[in-house]
Amino acid sequence: MASSVVGDLPSSQIAAVLVEPGRIELSERPVPRPGPKEVVLEVRAVGLCGSDAHYYREGRIGDFVVRAPLVLGHEASGRVVARGPDCRLELDQRVAIEPGVPCRVCWACKSGHYNLCPDVSFMATPPVDGALCQYVLMPEDFCHPVPDSLSDEAAALIEPTAVAVWASDKAALRPGETVAVIGAGPVGCLCGLVGLAGGARPLLVDVEPRRIERARRLGLDAREASELEGSQFDAALECSGAEGALDLALEISRPAGRVVAVGMSAESKVAISLSALQTKEIWLTGTFRYANVYPRAIDLAARGLVPLDNLVDDVMGLNRTAEGLELPRRNPSVLKVVVRPNQAA
Amino acid sequence: MASSVVGDLPSSQIAAVLVEPGRIELSERPVPRPGPKEVVLEVRAVGLCGSDAHYYREGRIGDFVVRAPLVLGHEASGRVVARGPDCRLELDQRVAIEPGVPCRVCWACKSGHYNLCPDVSFMATPPVDGALCQYVLMPEDFCHPVPDSLSDEAAALIEPTAVAVWASDKAALRPGETVAVIGAGPVGCLCGLVGLAGGARPLLVDVEPRRIERARRLGLDAREASELEGSQFDAALECSGAEGALDLALEISRPAGRVVAVGMSAESKVAISLSALQTKEIWLTGTFRYANVYPRAIDLAARGLVPLDNLVDDVMGLNRTAEGLELPRRNPSVLKVVVRPNQAA
Amino acid sequence: MASSVVGDLPSSQIAAVLVEPGRIELSERPVPRPGPKEVVLEVRAVGLCGSDAHYYREGRIGDFVVRAPLVLGHEASGRVVARGPDCRLELDQRVAIEPGVPCRVCWACKSGHYNLCPDVSFMATPPVDGALCQYVLMPEDFCHPVPDSLSDEAAALIEPTAVAVWASDKAALRPGETVAVIGAGPVGCLCGLVGLAGGARPLLVDVEPRRIERARRLGLDAREASELEGSQFDAALECSGAEGALDLALEISRPAGRVVAVGMSAESKVAISLSALQTKEIWLTGTFRYANVYPRAIDLAARGLVPLDNLVDDVMGLNRTAEGLELPRRNPSVLKVVVRPNQAA
Amino acid sequence: MASSVVGDLPSSQIAAVLVEPGRIELSERPVPRPGPKEVVLEVRAVGLCGSDAHYYREGRIGDFVVRAPLVLGHEASGRVVARGPDCRLELDQRVAIEPGVPCRVCWACKSGHYNLCPDVSFMATPPVDGALCQYVLMPEDFCHPVPDSLSDEAAALIEPTAVAVWASDKAALRPGETVAVIGAGPVGCLCGLVGLAGGARPLLVDVEPRRIERARRLGLDAREASELEGSQFDAALECSGAEGALDLALEISRPAGRVVAVGMSAESKVAISLSALQTKEIWLTGTFRYANVYPRAIDLAARGLVPLDNLVDDVMGLNRTAEGLELPRRNPSVLKVVVRPNQAA
Repeated sequence: MASSVVGDLPSSQIAAVLVEPGRIELSERPVPRPGPKEVVLEVRAVGLCGSDAHYYREGRIGDFVVRAPLVLGHEASGRVVARGPDCRLELDQRVAIEPGVPCRVCWACKSGHYNLCPDVSFMATPPVDGALCQYVLMPEDFCHPVPDSLSDEAAALIEPTAVAVWASDKAALRPGETVAVIGAGPVGCLCGLVGLAGGARPLLVDVEPRRIERARRLGLDAREASELEGSQFDAALECSGAEGALDLALEISRPAGRVVAVGMSAESKVAISLSALQTKEIWLTGTFRYANVYPRAIDLAARGLVPLDNLVDDVMGLNRTAEGLELPRRNPSVLKVVVRPNQAA
Repeated sequence: MASSVVGDLPSSQIAAVLVEPGRIELSERPVPRPGPKEVVLEVRAVGLCGSDAHYYREGRIGDFVVRAPLVLGHEASGRVVARGPDCRLELDQRVAIEPGVPCRVCWACKSGHYNLCPDVSFMATPPVDGALCQYVLMPEDFCHPVPDSLSDEAAALIEPTAVAVWASDKAALRPGETVAVIGAGPVGCLCGLVGLAGGARPLLVDVEPRRIERARRLGLDAREASELEGSQFDAALECSGAEGALDLALEISRPAGRVVAVGMSAESKVAISLSALQTKEIWLTGTFRYANVYPRAIDLAARGLVPLDNLVDDVMGLNRTAEGLELPRRNPSVLKVVVRPNQAA
Repeated sequence: MASSVVGDLPSSQIAAVLVEPGRIELSERPVPRPGPKEVVLEVRAVGLCGSDAHYYREGRIGDFVVRAPLVLGHEASGRVVARGPDCRLELDQRVAIEPGVPCRVCWACKSGHYNLCPDVSFMATPPVDGALCQYVLMPEDFCHPVPDSLSDEAAALIEPTAVAVWASDKAALRPGETVAVIGAGPVGCLCGLVGLAGGARPLLVDVEPRRIERARRLGLDAREASELEGSQFDAALECSGAEGALDLALEISRPAGRVVAVGMSAESKVAISLSALQTKEIWLTGTFRYANVYPRAIDLAARGLVPLDNLVDDVMGLNRTAEGLELPRRNPSVLKVVVRPNQAA
Repeated sequence: MASSVVGDLPSSQIAAVLVEPGRIELSERPVPRPGPKEVVLEVRAVGLCGSDAHYYREGRIGDFVVRAPLVLGHEASGRVVARGPDCRLELDQRVAIEPGVPCRVCWACKSGHYNLCPDVSFMATPPVDGALCQYVLMPEDFCHPVPDSLSDEAAALIEPTAVAVWASDKAALRPGETVAVIGAGPVGCLCGLVGLAGGARPLLVDVEPRRIERARRLGLDAREASELEGSQFDAALECSGAEGALDLALEISRPAGRVVAVGMSAESKVAISLSALQTKEIWLTGTFRYANVYPRAIDLAARGLVPLDNLVDDVMGLNRTAEGLELPRRNPSVLKVVVRPNQAA
């Protein structure tokens, strides 16, 4: 276990770099070398996320501003091609990449909340580069082995699946419970699929008929939001970030129900009914990424309970990254586009 | 809602009565009349449980001694045939019967632990009569409506399913987790099926090959206990009551894992490894019946996630009750026998 | 235990009745007789609450409208003067009265959330009469014995103490944690005292110097809200209902902190920072009265850990009820006024 | 913050070394130098623990065997005398030392259970040296600043206080609850004091009159174990390791109560009543050291809620270590002996 294996790692690679809002260029970058307990991964697949598209278009998300050329992409899978000293992972192991590496010494890290570490280094969040390139360096404990039954694309989508597993955990969903999922985008659909996998009865709602239709093709019960009226759910997951959505979640929650804010909002403040929160004693929380859930997300996908390949609408090479980033916005039927950085376009 | 409807309820009925250990007789009993918020149910189906068989053979379970003729049976479904004042349930509604009615005023009842109420009146626990008869009287809030998709037999088996849902809740099972289930009898199999329904990965173990084979026919992963060695599970459910089984559960639990003692033991004391409990900080608890889980158990069964009809090996009339009680002991392949008290044998 | 004892209970009594907003009249009412498991209490003391004052001035609180003459008062202590059949309480027993009696059959009641029962009968909430009279009828299980060490006034204030214990439980306060309490009225001060009793480090904030000063006289650390800036608390209890207060609570909470909305707001919607909720994964909930906490509140008061007599600024007879209701509003230094209905003014 | 300050650190120091069972020798050792985020501490005080005494007498505790000369002592306070690069702690800062440093990368570490890390390096657990010497090297995040109000001796006793805070957390003790503490040694007394600090009502029991008397001098309610009969506690903390003690804890716990095994037992298996565990649905767990509780333990001690100096019966120099280790066994009235390694005897 002690020795380092670097093999015939090339010295340079191609990365898709966001050089200014709306402009992505392929450029050459050095291939990193692994230190102790680190591996270098050949990137197999990268799912494009709404946050990638947002950085691409706007150059910022709230306080996070792209000030220097940035490699996007944080939903990624890879294959171990080099390992530093003291690694357990073997060469050629295929892995799902957990893209946020925390400091390991602060209170958040030591108390199990490493996703809340203020010093986390998270892929594709400025100024940290992401995975839309051919090779990335990772501490091995953030690389989670996947079985052969999982495709590269599915392994990349473990990341948003982890978001959904985390949301399901925060909502403390139990078999046989009802859960409303507001917003039928990728995260909403994954929350629905994880809910189903966990024996809950998810109902997705959205305002866009094409997203509703897309969700139904995944086997989910999806409807117009207006059909919720008068319902009472054991839990509600707000995945849309839309105005009024969190308040709706509180309204349709049963007494002692749980509401989780998963989607980020463009507004700095959201209005909620204090009376609903109090008279029903609802538990309301929000999620920020995830912690310690990758192995469970992998298991659910590998057993086919969360069929991730069904989310993928298009697969393309690194040179078509910009096109891929624009696709879902142009066509609400498109749930997920995946880039394969080591494939010819 | 206010008026009482009794209709053409007969005045007498037939019950299967345990008159002494090993002897059950059919005898005539009056048909009860409903008071406020009470209903009379025509009994549709009654699952025979190991505890029924134990009372039948031994006349006692621990401190509970059968001192007067007793009607056995507590896994039951019924149909509303009479309703007292202030009832919400309609005539003809098919229901799963929750057989333990608590006092509603003690600390346990008011704090959500009504299953721990010291004054509970529980069917077929001396001196309270059970459901192996044609009609029973119930407070309506312990009668849970079932949809048409659920057979009478399946509705009766909601009771042991509730035991399994409660065990799953106590173990805080989450999707993608591993769980060992020790003992592949009816409760163990149901714990496995509820675990599967909830997205967990249950592994059943037993020492009797025919029970292992029977569990596999339910679609469960079932093995010899000896195959557990060296494994580490997120949770373990002890459903066998066998000597050493609880200690095995502690041994195979991961750090911070959860162990639930579901099966009752013949021994008054069981030996456990304190060191395992401490160095892994395992959460260990036991279950006693269940509380507030019938609707969820019904949902899981009605959606086919827990296919209860597959558990039923034989269905018979009231006159064959004694034969039914002896069957599983004689043939370990028999998981569940159901009696239909209103059917000709 | 079985027999009923009514003794020389008088046939009529005097009650302070709210006949229209701003007008309370003393009028004669019959003295109730106890049924099974019920007692009649001679009312010893009644704390006047902000909600009583609100009904008195406005004739309504939100959707709760006083449409018929109403007896106010729900913070009360009493002495058993008559007992129905099947009672455990003895004559002369002094008790703290828990003023909300739930239906005992709904889901909320059976799952330990009886405070959320939609059919609760709660004193002084229209149309249910309260305790500002000489005798009240109660189910005995909502009458909690108090030791001699507790004065009648302190026993009456067990009710708002229960509110604070419930808030402390919802915040899962642990010894050595920091907790911000926003609002230094009676409930805020009690949250502070319960926090101190539990080994937490409460800091009260308010905008009114006289309330700050009054809180300090109780031994609490109380300051101007502006002094909070930059602080981070393990938990925050919002007890003011003031605009912006809940958002402040989120702002000053640490990652994975807990925020509890205790105070009711006049506004139907409150604005909160979704970003704070999400990036810190705060647990936010609200409280509605309390459940199952009276014995613990009594214990804290009886051991002097929550010195309730120190909250009482004035004690008066039933004929001065209106004056008492107006006092705290006129003088922010007044924390609590207590009426003794069986004392000559 | 970036630069390293080593100052005039001496090159060698004196340590009390266990060379074989029953023999401790003072010997010269090198003084360590700090790396990044590390500090060197002058050891101020070291509390002697039962486990130190056990290693001293027996040379082993269960599977942990002293195979090479070992420095004992893990309850320690210090003063920063040298700091490596990237440290936040200032020179001269007085700290309580948290003696177990985990690997920071395993599942246990990342999920908040760093006390369960299989690769933890824990002071005075073979082969890791402890604090009975003049200088120790520590990662700075395991050094917790203490205020001036805390003596060196008290700061050393934060370690066993952390054990008690952790036990109190596991028992989820709340203000106003009752808790039985079995065993009135140092940990039992600290569990009692932490329970009191948290507003609970602890009752300590022991079989040794001198320990009962000593506990009473700390202000605790302590009695003969025989006086427990028929009691029902919200929680029970087993701190004695005595035969039958854990079963007693289960017996005296109320329904849905919590039992925590804190004390280690000499027996490999302990017998418990499965029936008590099940029919009361008790939550039983064990503690192994602690995680994330030092700051709260320091706060409780610094505010005088847990008066640690009152536990100290004797203070001595390093040369009297062996004598100190034997003292509590010879005299059950002796609760805690503290060694000051940098003081002349």
